[in-house]
Amino acid sequence: MNREQMIESVKSQMPEKRWKHVEGVMATSIILAERFGEDPVKAELAAILHDVAKYWPIAKMEQIIREQQLDQGLLDHDKALWHAEVGYWVAEHEYGVQDQDILDAIRYHTSGRVGMTKLDKVVCLADYMEPGRDFPGVERIRELSGTSLEQALIAGFDSTILFLLEKGNRIYPLTVESRNDLIKQQKIGG
Amino acid sequence: MNREQMIESVKSQMPEKRWKHVEGVMATSIILAERFGEDPVKAELAAILHDVAKYWPIAKMEQIIREQQLDQGLLDHDKALWHAEVGYWVAEHEYGVQDQDILDAIRYHTSGRVGMTKLDKVVCLADYMEPGRDFPGVERIRELSGTSLEQALIAGFDSTILFLLEKGNRIYPLTVESRNDLIKQQKIGG
Repeated sequence: MNREQMIESVKSQMPEKRWKHVEGVMATSIILAERFGEDPVKAELAAILHDVAKYWPIAKMEQIIREQQLDQGLLDHDKALWHAEVGYWVAEHEYGVQDQDILDAIRYHTSGRVGMTKLDKVVCLADYMEPGRDFPGVERIRELSGTSLEQALIAGFDSTILFLLEKGNRIYPLTVESRNDLIKQQKIGG
Repeated sequence: MNREQMIESVKSQMPEKRWKHVEGVMATSIILAERFGEDPVKAELAAILHDVAKYWPIAKMEQIIREQQLDQGLLDHDKALWHAEVGYWVAEHEYGVQDQDILDAIRYHTSGRVGMTKLDKVVCLADYMEPGRDFPGVERIRELSGTSLEQALIAGFDSTILFLLEKGNRIYPLTVESRNDLIKQQKIGG
């Protein structure tokens, strides 16, 4: 499957508005990859596929997580997290992606993880700050992304945690651990 | 060692201001225990000892955590968390406390834990809301404590997480997991 066929396939699985978001993440991933020394082709490919399962039925996502022995712990958490795990599986098994860096960037684009790669950071940050995004704090994230992938991503995770606090919802522990890990690295590096 | 001797011993290990805080936690623990059906004598005893190690030298706390095989993971986190773990050990080994409920309430009074007991909740909440405490959100915590131990404690953890977010500091994952667990229980119960 070439790039155009993949785009058509992904586009057909989501509403027009969500596809606009994906295009925003694709463009932003390329910009961030070039800015911070990552491969823009890999970044764009991960971006194309990152939300492929976003509009799949909940039951289908649950089935894949169970049957393909993906992270079962996710089933106890917010369903909004499931599409990343399922997208990871779909990218490999339905789109033939073999590059582990790209697969991981899809898998961890919502939660982050401890020890995020540069590609993970690029895609996750692009998802927070693509031009269509509009939430409290997004301008600060865009500002920080001019100079630091990590500082911008910490601000992104801050916005997620703050949103969940204000809603009285549970916070996915891996997001907190990802943020902690970025802060720790910054302090060691700085 | 009787109650008065224990009080004198703990008092001698901290500044006057911190002792005032401990007295506040003692009084508040008794009130909350009576309100929510916990043993006020156990609650007060845990409160007397909860900050016993708060002003101990960092090196001494680190030594106890290492040598007594306490939770080594704490050493990678904020030193402000260490006194609870050390206090747990001190309560058993220097004050002869044998009641596991009391020991656990001391151990988890700062972080909370998944599956908090009622005694854990009483002491942790008293520590947040004793009359000497003054921070953004404390009035809301006191208000909620009139009717729900859990809702008040969730608001307490919210205030801690928000404080750490604003400071750009790491968040102890167990605090997030404790809050998640309380929210989950509320939703199942409610």
